[in-house]
Amino acid sequence: MDQWTISGHDNFHLPFAQPLVNPNRMATTDTKPYMQKLGRSARQAAKVLAIANTQAKRTAILAAARAIESKATYLVEQNQLDLNRASENGLSPAMVDRLRLDRSRIESIAKGLCQVANLEDPVGTVMAKWDRPNGLQIQRVRTPLGVIGVIYESRPNVTADAGALCLLAGNAVILRGGSDSICSSTAIHQCLVEGLKTAGLPVESVQLVTTTDRSAVGEMLQGLDGNIDVIVPRGGKSLVARVQAECRVPVFAHLEGICHTYVDATSEIAMAVEVVHNAKMRRTGICGATETLLVQQDAAASHLLPILERLRDSGCEVRSDEAIGARFDCIAATQNDWSTEYLDAIISVRLVADVGEAISHIQRYSSGHTEAIISNDAKAVARFMSEIDSAIVMHNASTQFADGGEFGMGAEIGIATGKMHARGPVGVEQLTSFNYRVLGAGQVRPS
Amino acid sequence: MDQWTISGHDNFHLPFAQPLVNPNRMATTDTKPYMQKLGRSARQAAKVLAIANTQAKRTAILAAARAIESKATYLVEQNQLDLNRASENGLSPAMVDRLRLDRSRIESIAKGLCQVANLEDPVGTVMAKWDRPNGLQIQRVRTPLGVIGVIYESRPNVTADAGALCLLAGNAVILRGGSDSICSSTAIHQCLVEGLKTAGLPVESVQLVTTTDRSAVGEMLQGLDGNIDVIVPRGGKSLVARVQAECRVPVFAHLEGICHTYVDATSEIAMAVEVVHNAKMRRTGICGATETLLVQQDAAASHLLPILERLRDSGCEVRSDEAIGARFDCIAATQNDWSTEYLDAIISVRLVADVGEAISHIQRYSSGHTEAIISNDAKAVARFMSEIDSAIVMHNASTQFADGGEFGMGAEIGIATGKMHARGPVGVEQLTSFNYRVLGAGQVRPS
Repeated sequence: MDQWTISGHDNFHLPFAQPLVNPNRMATTDTKPYMQKLGRSARQAAKVLAIANTQAKRTAILAAARAIESKATYLVEQNQLDLNRASENGLSPAMVDRLRLDRSRIESIAKGLCQVANLEDPVGTVMAKWDRPNGLQIQRVRTPLGVIGVIYESRPNVTADAGALCLLAGNAVILRGGSDSICSSTAIHQCLVEGLKTAGLPVESVQLVTTTDRSAVGEMLQGLDGNIDVIVPRGGKSLVARVQAECRVPVFAHLEGICHTYVDATSEIAMAVEVVHNAKMRRTGICGATETLLVQQDAAASHLLPILERLRDSGCEVRSDEAIGARFDCIAATQNDWSTEYLDAIISVRLVADVGEAISHIQRYSSGHTEAIISNDAKAVARFMSEIDSAIVMHNASTQFADGGEFGMGAEIGIATGKMHARGPVGVEQLTSFNYRVLGAGQVRPS
Repeated sequence: MDQWTISGHDNFHLPFAQPLVNPNRMATTDTKPYMQKLGRSARQAAKVLAIANTQAKRTAILAAARAIESKATYLVEQNQLDLNRASENGLSPAMVDRLRLDRSRIESIAKGLCQVANLEDPVGTVMAKWDRPNGLQIQRVRTPLGVIGVIYESRPNVTADAGALCLLAGNAVILRGGSDSICSSTAIHQCLVEGLKTAGLPVESVQLVTTTDRSAVGEMLQGLDGNIDVIVPRGGKSLVARVQAECRVPVFAHLEGICHTYVDATSEIAMAVEVVHNAKMRRTGICGATETLLVQQDAAASHLLPILERLRDSGCEVRSDEAIGARFDCIAATQNDWSTEYLDAIISVRLVADVGEAISHIQRYSSGHTEAIISNDAKAVARFMSEIDSAIVMHNASTQFADGGEFGMGAEIGIATGKMHARGPVGVEQLTSFNYRVLGAGQVRPS
């Protein structure tokens, strides 16, 4: 059985041998040239990928999916190495759960790849075209972004999801997963490389950083000598905060999702009850979960009791302002609550005079992710939708719909709250750029 | 007559008094808090502008145009102060010319403002909309970017052009012009502020940095505590290079325009001669001027002589590779020539085997601005158009068409070669962001 090493550049032989992963094998002094080499290789691969046809990219992704399915036993074994280390290192049960790969999760990774392969290839799409009076025909055409750096934590599935999305959009990708999941990520990466080989695409199209030296992240944030075009961090607030603070290249990310739902007196009570309950409680740990409920003063008598009862019946803790606390038995919210992303079964609730005060509260405390208004007052709705400058604003719907899949974009690599280039769900289309193609018949520009 | 000060915050009384501009009036230690205040004021103004209606923005721009026309004498006087200082400081004739405002230039500034006022307001445009199976209606709607920082050199007209474009797109703008043109820029800025007042818009919507302390630029590049969303540098290579190197916020810019025209053997000789001549010689100082001509070997005997003769007849210096030098009397090009933006009546010329070698040369030396192919070979054209990843690629047309006006975008604030958000001409539409608006009827997301 051949030995094989773990980076995308090297040979890759089946059946899979025990990988040579040693999370500490690379000294810090070696990291910079190693990362620079990854950057150069990625840039070269990106040139090939940029003009690869859709069929080749789909073939690569589907072959990777097949490899993941057929190597399930191997993936579970590799994952077990990570789990063993996790238990030695005393990782929290939540982190261990995120890390774990079982047959069902492996199947869902493979299924996710097949879904990405079936998305429309955005590259080459004519986004707009028009003719000029002088006969020039101008087209704006989607092109790949180039090289994308993805920095993530312990979820090994990100290796597959992010790799495939970047690939379909014609981008090379450099993946840097958490050290906790290095064996699992490496095994998944091997499957992606097998897919690339099947399709005849450069194996450097999807590269995994195999050193767990943390300075590798710093190198990526500096852009690897101009060889990374955008960084996508996938993980908790501290990772995203570090990336946003230090990164010298554009970042697609959201730091947190302090999402609001505002209920006014014109809303249907039953709708308000169900939408608020879903927005908070469907899954409390996702970025689109509502963290603060704003209720119009005039709705306090009619709407508040059924809304709060429904939340409490599901085990939600309610922290309220004084006005609500005077009517209902609630924990008193502190100033800090209005700017806290609980990611838990806790909601802060505040009475506001009207939509204007709701907007002011949101403008002050929102993280710019998603906000919703539950109302039947067309004027208030119009004002809310136009004055709230968050990535997503909703009317009469649960903030938990803030998701690329729910938007019909297929898979997403994350949600961005920045205003540049990609905002809201970042799907395959948002991972592209564009250029202008001008078709003439010998036109010259008059003096 | 009231005295008045020169920042957008303060009172502004007509008729215009002698401004209190003293280019050195502000000590470095005062600059940081002064700039921070500009940032905060801009952010506040941006919130109002974001929801201002089209009519108000147009009124402001048209009133500014009228103010500029009616204060022409005052503008000439203020410009004379700059010209006097320029002559004391020994500025080059080219720089003095750029600085000069005469009646005709003032008229054209006013006319430019009227043209911007007549552009379509991009804010609120529904870029895309679709329905989901669950009945949710999703819209992607254009929104302003927020606050734009414009850093420019001695052309006082940028004050008006950039101010008006940002304003129409619903953005607040902080303008930092060169110290050489401070009196002229200040006078133009006063007209913009008068326009804002006429329209009832915040005077802080367009602010001019009135200190000429160079650390003001450094403060802008740091983003003024998150109060600048994008920087647009307008000026020479050294300004742009500094901005790109130091800036902590996104930048819309091109460092230089090393544009190429490739002529192959299938092209019509007469077309090739005229297009190359126009691409190089129409105006040699603009970023879309062709700097390097690549000619297919098979076209050397047929195309090269008439192309070079036409260039030389117009006074263009030709620097060629050895193969061409052996046939024609040319200056020998050095390695350096292939990466030089002459901005002058000089062209570098090289023979290449085919479109593949032309693409390789361009991928190596291009600055990613604009490249053209002159050819009647559909296969070569398709390859060139898809493999060249510059902001603009052209077929059978002069690279001098690389311009927002020529693209039908109306005025442009510049041309960007980055791949993020805005690429190619940056017009009013490119100065916007977008968000998603989701319209529901009480939908909740299934578990």
